[in-house]
Amino acid sequence: MTDFKPKFLEVYSVLKSDLLNDSAFDFTQDSRQWLDKMLDYNVPGGKLNRGLSVIDSYKLLKEGKELTDDEVFLACALGWCIEWLQAYFLVLDDIMDNSQTRRGQPCWYKIPKVGMIAVNDGVLLRNHIPRILKKYFRSKAYYVDLIDLFNEVEFQTASGQMIDLITTLVGEKDLSKYSLSIHRRIVQYKTAYYSFYLPVACALLMIGENLDDHVNVKEILIEMGTYFQVQDDYLDCFGAPEVIGKIGTDIEDFKCSWLVVKALELSNDEQKKFLYESYGKEDHASVSKVKELYRTLKLEDVFADYESKSYEKLIKFIEAHPSKAVQEVLKSFLGKIYKRKK
Amino acid sequence: MTDFKPKFLEVYSVLKSDLLNDSAFDFTQDSRQWLDKMLDYNVPGGKLNRGLSVIDSYKLLKEGKELTDDEVFLACALGWCIEWLQAYFLVLDDIMDNSQTRRGQPCWYKIPKVGMIAVNDGVLLRNHIPRILKKYFRSKAYYVDLIDLFNEVEFQTASGQMIDLITTLVGEKDLSKYSLSIHRRIVQYKTAYYSFYLPVACALLMIGENLDDHVNVKEILIEMGTYFQVQDDYLDCFGAPEVIGKIGTDIEDFKCSWLVVKALELSNDEQKKFLYESYGKEDHASVSKVKELYRTLKLEDVFADYESKSYEKLIKFIEAHPSKAVQEVLKSFLGKIYKRKK
Repeated sequence: MTDFKPKFLEVYSVLKSDLLNDSAFDFTQDSRQWLDKMLDYNVPGGKLNRGLSVIDSYKLLKEGKELTDDEVFLACALGWCIEWLQAYFLVLDDIMDNSQTRRGQPCWYKIPKVGMIAVNDGVLLRNHIPRILKKYFRSKAYYVDLIDLFNEVEFQTASGQMIDLITTLVGEKDLSKYSLSIHRRIVQYKTAYYSFYLPVACALLMIGENLDDHVNVKEILIEMGTYFQVQDDYLDCFGAPEVIGKIGTDIEDFKCSWLVVKALELSNDEQKKFLYESYGKEDHASVSKVKELYRTLKLEDVFADYESKSYEKLIKFIEAHPSKAVQEVLKSFLGKIYKRKK
Repeated sequence: MTDFKPKFLEVYSVLKSDLLNDSAFDFTQDSRQWLDKMLDYNVPGGKLNRGLSVIDSYKLLKEGKELTDDEVFLACALGWCIEWLQAYFLVLDDIMDNSQTRRGQPCWYKIPKVGMIAVNDGVLLRNHIPRILKKYFRSKAYYVDLIDLFNEVEFQTASGQMIDLITTLVGEKDLSKYSLSIHRRIVQYKTAYYSFYLPVACALLMIGENLDDHVNVKEILIEMGTYFQVQDDYLDCFGAPEVIGKIGTDIEDFKCSWLVVKALELSNDEQKKFLYESYGKEDHASVSKVKELYRTLKLEDVFADYESKSYEKLIKFIEAHPSKAVQEVLKSFLGKIYKRKK
């Protein structure tokens, strides 16, 4: 598969330069400098999987036909819009979660000079997306659909974040609110739409498809995104910290994780009572005992079973799709995440 | 002039109900309740001037022709989009400014259960705008222009907020950064675009106009918005607290106010030295002495002079406009703010 990463990174510089010279605003020298630093700090430092998957998907949809320079640029620009969207969410999420580090450096709002200005920086990141779309896509037939798509996906992500926040509400630690159905809802809206559906939807629009004709593609990708987040929850507890790059704190943070939801489902009354008392406590002993309970309940096996069943189900769905090219796109996504260790 | 306020408030209920039942998201009962409360707390409690001016302007542009129920509804819906935009900015600004009260009640983030969830609530408010636009305007010929307009104005507002924040950067209190030109830039982008230009631009789009043909209307409204904010700065210090409904704290807060900028311009070296030392200090004595200096420099007269000159200039510009209906719209705006005391 073509490695689009070098090209993708080049496009970042073009987009940044566009934004620093946007004629809709009369920059001061200080504000241009601030923006420059803010973008470099928050936008390009992640794994870029979401962004790169637009161009990867587009390439597969073209079924071997060579891409023009223009097509490559546009697909990369859309990929960056998703990375911008992600940066916006992360900058604000870190403030809401009172996080300390992100991608191996202090969270943006933790930089002393930044502080709560980070809220507006988040807003700016979000505002850059329509600036990019307008500059490069205004004349395309699919411009309105593109705008509508980004708006809808952002709305769904923020709504998922809302149920996550009010379910996890600090000071009201009540495990009875947690269930598979609420977990599914949070994951689907907060993660799956923008991480899985959005990149493919961008590629489909670029190739001239009508998204209304691809409701089943959306469903498959949402299912895949859910599976991805369950893996994330699993790795937070059972992954190797040196591999996943962080020490999980879902138990301490009273997170609505797939593991605690499954544990509640499988516990007897005594175990359930223990979970109600211990989940969300900061102390090491409580955390260890919760992990011990997870092991007693054989959640590692339960997860392995979930993982293989999800995979089979997804493959079956994918192979039922009428277009081979679309199948390739979906299989490529699935291949990237199946049995991942990080 | 027709009083559209009762109708306007009715439309709020319709829009709220739409949003609470948006099929793009699968609400839990808790999240629907949260959203309901959040909207009532933050959206309709202001003076509603910005929102109402869409329908007022539209009515004037129709030159006496009766409006259909549909037109009234749509103009009100656009007015509410501006109120939603304003609510979004205010919820986030209050967090960034560490404010305590807003519209006579605690700021939303100050409600104990809310806290930093307010960041996401701000984001949700912003996301409701495209939801409303899509539901009621998707089929209109001006739909794309409407979306582009809201995006551009939001971008300009957030950019204005950025220069305001980094100019006023806490911990770097340095008056030498303040000047009429930076003041103008902040005011124009942070306030004038969304408060003055946006309502009229919405009305123009609804009536079928192309905004590119109305660059001079934009310029006049930006000028008017600038004048409006200078009044605001003036009233913060010289207005009657019982009339303006708050006790101004621009001096304590080291704000880039028109008053301090003018004072710097008119001060001799000794007075300037005093200002550099005293502006932005919390203590009552410093604040009083700054106000004393403002009086010594006769800033009340300087303002009165600015006010009458602005008015004359605006009237001249307005009367040069080829359309009587547009003149009426602009004069109606100006009439509402000229020599206002609150």
